[in-house]
Amino acid sequence: MNNVTNNPREKLACIFGRRSVRAYTNAQVDDDTLRLLLEAAMAAPSAVAKDPWRFVVVRRPSTLTEIASALPNGRFLAKAAAGIAVVGDIDAAHDRQLSYLLQDCSAAIENLLIAANILGLGACWLGVHPREDRIKRLREILSLPENIVPVAMISVGYPAERKEPRTRYTDRYVHHERW
Amino acid sequence: MNNVTNNPREKLACIFGRRSVRAYTNAQVDDDTLRLLLEAAMAAPSAVAKDPWRFVVVRRPSTLTEIASALPNGRFLAKAAAGIAVVGDIDAAHDRQLSYLLQDCSAAIENLLIAANILGLGACWLGVHPREDRIKRLREILSLPENIVPVAMISVGYPAERKEPRTRYTDRYVHHERW
Repeated sequence: MNNVTNNPREKLACIFGRRSVRAYTNAQVDDDTLRLLLEAAMAAPSAVAKDPWRFVVVRRPSTLTEIASALPNGRFLAKAAAGIAVVGDIDAAHDRQLSYLLQDCSAAIENLLIAANILGLGACWLGVHPREDRIKRLREILSLPENIVPVAMISVGYPAERKEPRTRYTDRYVHHERW
Repeated sequence: MNNVTNNPREKLACIFGRRSVRAYTNAQVDDDTLRLLLEAAMAAPSAVAKDPWRFVVVRRPSTLTEIASALPNGRFLAKAAAGIAVVGDIDAAHDRQLSYLLQDCSAAIENLLIAANILGLGACWLGVHPREDRIKRLREILSLPENIVPVAMISVGYPAERKEPRTRYTDRYVHHERW
């Protein structure tokens, strides 16, 4: 993570090094660090700057366990230091469009994940929307009002696994001038 | 952009410094740099790693002008060194769900925007989805097949305006343990 380099690819280490980390140590994540993650999330652009994103920070192990049980492949959330539910307020989204809400919340999530990587944390994006059963359970567990749409759950902790930087760049996904 | 700092907030400069840049110099952006932006985009996570994102890189001024005319508030795209249409293949998206397509493409876009900032470029996210008129025009101009959903247009160039780093962090958007 040393940006004092003239190699453009090395400058992007914070992006290529962001991997889905699902194993965490027992170390807690302090309030200042969680706050920085949220500052990074809310530095994302949003449609017409409506910032429809909202966040529920969960640290109570019993709640994390409950949410984990609602997310297939999300069992590891129970062992994370924190979970951040990223949700959107449909009444705040530009033109009340779900599309903008999803785009804006996803940009915020990606900022949060890159920030976590830069700060030496591990994190993983756990999908919630558009699965009706997961949306319903999140609403119940977190007491979300009707206008609040759960998008994803982000697990956060200090990494107990190490993954190599990478890109999944695929040449045939790139077109020039037209399709 | 010096990450050799012990200040956690300064380490996140690449995120807070990403601003919507709409004014560009006449300088061209070389192929290697555009390629790096796309490598960064495709380093984002996607639902079940389906990577439904696709990209159309546009450099021809006449095409940029045509696309700009289809995007309200997007006039400046005509003066950009390049435009990158970020589109999604609904047949490739997890469970063919538009929600995943939008989330995955948005994460890729945010990676691209942060990479542009790190590399000294300016970029701006121009909304396309869910506006039917914009979707239709993009489809026509770029000859997109039916299964390809235009999400956004990203303008890219060397910045002719400077904006200060910032976050739009808002304390009341953060809840703890439950809503």
